[in-house]
Amino acid sequence: MEKIFYPESIAIWGLSNRENNIPRLMLENLIRWGYEGRLFGIHPKGDEKHVDGVKMYKSIKDLPQQPDLAVFLLPARLIPGALREAGEFGVRRAAILSGGFNESGAEGEKLAEELMAVADDFGIRFIGPNGLTVANTANGLCLPFTPTFKTPRGGMSLITQSGGMGLFLWHLMADENIGLAKFASIGNKLNVSEVDCIRYFGEDPETKVICLYLESITDGRQLMEAASEAGKPVIIYKANTTQAGSKAAMSHTAAISNNEEIIDAAFERAGILRIEEFDDFIGAAKIFELPPMRGNRIMVMSPAGGFTVLMADLCEKAGFEFADPGEAFYKEIAEFTNAGVITLSNPLDLGDIYDPSSTASVINLVLHNDKVDGAVYLTQNPQMPKNDDVFNKMFKTDISKEVTGAIRSSGKPMASCLYGPSKTINRVKQNVNVPIFNTPESMIRIMKLQQRYHAKQAEPAFTTALPHGIDMDAAASWVRSHTGTHGEEALELLTAFGIPVAKNQTATTPDEAVAAAEAIGYPVVMKVISPDAVHKSEAGGVLMGLNDASDVRNGFDTIWANLEAYKKDARFDGVRLMAMAGSGHDMFVGGSVDDSFGPVALFGYGGIYIEVFQDAQTVLCPSSPDEIETKITRLKSAKILAGTRGKAGGDISGYIDLIHRVTHLMAQFPQIQELDLNPVRVLEDGSGVLALDARCRIEKRS
Amino acid sequence: MEKIFYPESIAIWGLSNRENNIPRLMLENLIRWGYEGRLFGIHPKGDEKHVDGVKMYKSIKDLPQQPDLAVFLLPARLIPGALREAGEFGVRRAAILSGGFNESGAEGEKLAEELMAVADDFGIRFIGPNGLTVANTANGLCLPFTPTFKTPRGGMSLITQSGGMGLFLWHLMADENIGLAKFASIGNKLNVSEVDCIRYFGEDPETKVICLYLESITDGRQLMEAASEAGKPVIIYKANTTQAGSKAAMSHTAAISNNEEIIDAAFERAGILRIEEFDDFIGAAKIFELPPMRGNRIMVMSPAGGFTVLMADLCEKAGFEFADPGEAFYKEIAEFTNAGVITLSNPLDLGDIYDPSSTASVINLVLHNDKVDGAVYLTQNPQMPKNDDVFNKMFKTDISKEVTGAIRSSGKPMASCLYGPSKTINRVKQNVNVPIFNTPESMIRIMKLQQRYHAKQAEPAFTTALPHGIDMDAAASWVRSHTGTHGEEALELLTAFGIPVAKNQTATTPDEAVAAAEAIGYPVVMKVISPDAVHKSEAGGVLMGLNDASDVRNGFDTIWANLEAYKKDARFDGVRLMAMAGSGHDMFVGGSVDDSFGPVALFGYGGIYIEVFQDAQTVLCPSSPDEIETKITRLKSAKILAGTRGKAGGDISGYIDLIHRVTHLMAQFPQIQELDLNPVRVLEDGSGVLALDARCRIEKRS
Repeated sequence: MEKIFYPESIAIWGLSNRENNIPRLMLENLIRWGYEGRLFGIHPKGDEKHVDGVKMYKSIKDLPQQPDLAVFLLPARLIPGALREAGEFGVRRAAILSGGFNESGAEGEKLAEELMAVADDFGIRFIGPNGLTVANTANGLCLPFTPTFKTPRGGMSLITQSGGMGLFLWHLMADENIGLAKFASIGNKLNVSEVDCIRYFGEDPETKVICLYLESITDGRQLMEAASEAGKPVIIYKANTTQAGSKAAMSHTAAISNNEEIIDAAFERAGILRIEEFDDFIGAAKIFELPPMRGNRIMVMSPAGGFTVLMADLCEKAGFEFADPGEAFYKEIAEFTNAGVITLSNPLDLGDIYDPSSTASVINLVLHNDKVDGAVYLTQNPQMPKNDDVFNKMFKTDISKEVTGAIRSSGKPMASCLYGPSKTINRVKQNVNVPIFNTPESMIRIMKLQQRYHAKQAEPAFTTALPHGIDMDAAASWVRSHTGTHGEEALELLTAFGIPVAKNQTATTPDEAVAAAEAIGYPVVMKVISPDAVHKSEAGGVLMGLNDASDVRNGFDTIWANLEAYKKDARFDGVRLMAMAGSGHDMFVGGSVDDSFGPVALFGYGGIYIEVFQDAQTVLCPSSPDEIETKITRLKSAKILAGTRGKAGGDISGYIDLIHRVTHLMAQFPQIQELDLNPVRVLEDGSGVLALDARCRIEKRS
Repeated sequence: MEKIFYPESIAIWGLSNRENNIPRLMLENLIRWGYEGRLFGIHPKGDEKHVDGVKMYKSIKDLPQQPDLAVFLLPARLIPGALREAGEFGVRRAAILSGGFNESGAEGEKLAEELMAVADDFGIRFIGPNGLTVANTANGLCLPFTPTFKTPRGGMSLITQSGGMGLFLWHLMADENIGLAKFASIGNKLNVSEVDCIRYFGEDPETKVICLYLESITDGRQLMEAASEAGKPVIIYKANTTQAGSKAAMSHTAAISNNEEIIDAAFERAGILRIEEFDDFIGAAKIFELPPMRGNRIMVMSPAGGFTVLMADLCEKAGFEFADPGEAFYKEIAEFTNAGVITLSNPLDLGDIYDPSSTASVINLVLHNDKVDGAVYLTQNPQMPKNDDVFNKMFKTDISKEVTGAIRSSGKPMASCLYGPSKTINRVKQNVNVPIFNTPESMIRIMKLQQRYHAKQAEPAFTTALPHGIDMDAAASWVRSHTGTHGEEALELLTAFGIPVAKNQTATTPDEAVAAAEAIGYPVVMKVISPDAVHKSEAGGVLMGLNDASDVRNGFDTIWANLEAYKKDARFDGVRLMAMAGSGHDMFVGGSVDDSFGPVALFGYGGIYIEVFQDAQTVLCPSSPDEIETKITRLKSAKILAGTRGKAGGDISGYIDLIHRVTHLMAQFPQIQELDLNPVRVLEDGSGVLALDARCRIEKRS
């Protein structure tokens, strides 16, 4: 990657002086940005001596040296051949901007394959095609071809799946006084992917914050790993969220899961910060210019009482605690007030403090207070008649040096939002070294993002270990021998994985059934076994509360008769007898395999209205007991498990252990495409849990 | 109100030349704004001849004429006396800016009472105290005292409970090219309230949009009425939303309701538009400068593919339909494209159209297409090197005249969002006559607001009529004779209101109980009647499934014995026998009385986990069958009532009728503070509903 971002020489294909020659626009950007490496122009059919002073060659073979980077902005059909020539000449890095490959039909697909074959032959790494490729403010490298002035240098690096969106952002940044480090528009990402870029930017000392605009996630696990290891904030805007994947899923538990929840679960585990509003890229870059907010206790300040109310609403909704700086603090700041008519508390209405130096002192005391972890401040700088009245003193106060000083000396963040005429705000943004936010909503949303990031960094890294009591050989052999869709017999697989299931046994004759029932203990449930009765209840194949041998004999006959009535020539493979479980709460656990993130599990409130209340949480497999416990507390039904309205709670630790085992089972055997434990009866605390029914779909592995 | 906003003469108390004299700042604003009425200065202790040229008087009695408006910015304790003098002199309108009244302790409360007494004595209407009072760009009236330049004239009128927030907004407006009509900072609203202002602004031809910043709503019903009748968009930002009212509520169904949901229900019925982000005031004012979006079919456009994805996500989430302009349309616009490589659909990627006149033609075709109700457009105007390349053509295109023309000739809205350096955007905002939004998120959120407003206007006004079959005399007499808290006997009240309840009868002896059970028909449920057994189950006071006379006799004895065991000397008033209801879905309906909005009802999924799933909807009482039906469809449990997973649905029309009756009952008898029907069993479709249990709390009316 180093040579892609820091090439000492570049060869540009297709350069010419003709009108609307796009490679020439790129060359002009390189010149404007002050790129100091050596430049070569190539055009097989051209007879120009130079373009913008850059000497032209008919073929790469004519070049006096191997260029570090070959750049292609040619019709797609010419590119594989040109890349081969470059490869033969010794080039090992390329940037391919042209479209017309796998994003555009069968012919493009073929060209994409040729391209990858050439790269393979010569060990060439390339970025693109169909992307604006790269820019680097450190060395003036700018391959995007939209005519652009040099973007100011800074700590934000940007990886984007849409070149246009990337440039939009990049243009916003200068205005907001956020500088760019590196830019990667990865296009079809046939060779260099977002994951490669995150890894590289993680190592790059110029990059302080890594931002990504993605429309799809190809390899979710790799993305998570790269982001976790980056050691820097990774901020992702994921577009294309409403076109829900339309895979038909066998089990309803899997069906109510969706991709967005999986992405959220993955990002949370990896510490990736997800933003939902496009402009938050800018805010997110700003907030990491401030010291970390190491606790959750915030102080809210404004010279306008109304704005303290507004910010208090926002802070409470965001989940901040209100700092309590203590009586001594309020006593101290009371000395700065004028009329003494405003009650001093948090949120802190500074409307009674007109003197700039007093405001600065209050801010200093706030940030240096031990019970405050960070602060937000909102004020205005309106266009107003020049005067020396109290309002001019209050609004035209430049305490930016004192605020910066208080921030740097306390090591705590204070985020500020300033309203006023855009030209004033713009000037302030350019001149102060602390970030200025555009709205209180975005400021507080993003402050929370920063606090969550640092809280996550302080946590131990995610780990998980295979639970004890698993018979892996038995499980593997069961999985191997049960491809396709299966019902209750999947309970056997669960048993092998140490998951408690209702005691059960199969029988093919009435005598066997009685023996089984007696081994289990009355009362028992009896269920039909038949590949032709997918929905057992509909087939009259479930009998509850059989209390003795005669019930069991009669039941066996009834079930068989019902099956025949249900479907002519239905195959009858016997019955399964199960213990009646004690009372408890019916939850569920489901597993499925996501295209991007692999095995995932979903769990929550079961019963007959799973789809109605959709009270479920998602984890990636394998998960850990800690992660599962955290997510259980987010279920609405956590209240039920904890015991509510005089009803006993459930064995939460047993439920956690069961989910944990399911997540390892899914991770161990990716050929299990779907797994559905429903219901899982969570018995009273201390009494454990029981999977009462299960279904699975296993695909054949070659 | 007319004389408050259009006074022909103003007397200002407390004016002087001393440093930091605030009335003088106000006077200077009046001068700066070009107020042309006559001005008088009053200062009892002053010996100045004039202040800023305005002649000073020692007392109002010395004035050559009665001023239309008296303005007070004095210490609170002096104001009642000064107002009395003004009243005696014939003044009938006043603006009181000073604080120190009922917002600040017992002494202030007393001053507030004095103030109101004086106003009563003379029939004076006043705005304030503790507010910045009024401004009017039509006549240059500006009483707010913060030094300010004249705000541009326009159609937005602002009512605010926080003066500071009002001024913030007002300063934002000029920058966004939104003009102000009138401003009312109502402070403690002791006399003139937000409702008075809405009514006045509704009649005011200068006002096109009425915006309110409120921290509390005093009389919700009046607010709704005024807003409904205004005939203009009424937009409210309600702050102070997280300090939930802390009234202890008897019944859990009432407890899970909260003020915010009541406000939303009220605003929805009244057609009030609620905004949740402060900056949306500006956006909301902008969007009503555009023609109405009369349908829900939107066209999404941008020259950047990424932005079409982003906007499509936002439009789908906001609930827009994507317009389908038809094949002929796409064929027609295809002629404007260059490379023909981009598939034309909705969202419409205009990245292949470089020619400004072509873009203008496409926009014209979009807005004039019969299948399009409105459009959103997002582009950028970056700072870039001047040139005549394709990118400069694409981004530096001024098609604002053509867009405005297309909007005005089609009568449909197109909202535009423009990214670029703030100075460019600011210039564009000042120079074009269609609104420019700051972010795609706010643009689409606010476009939906406008569409909803016009959809609401097209609907028939809310009406409701008392349902048939109500024995109002019986209900009234029951309510009169049942103050305090009551349990199942409230079923009698429901019966009087035509609400079906489980057949039931009371009995005080075993013989009576048997007779009652036989009249009802077996099996029956028996429940204790005792003021000492609030929770009947805990007192062993509920027996289910009594099948014959002997069961009933034994049950009677058991219940009595259980009660005595539960509480020594508990009063035993007999038992209630009830029919066992058929199977169905258990929902609930609750009623309570809100401080601002009066009687409200809450209904939704009942069962034992009401608090857990909180699947409930709120309506104001009385509601209508249509409104209730709409809200039922928003319940998650609507799926259950419609029938799900092979389970039969419920009698939805019966449930609607029952709720409708409850809302009229609550409206008819406001002394019913709480009413709780739980469960309401919704039987199979066609079989009706039954209230199985009820509780109520009725307060004594004088």
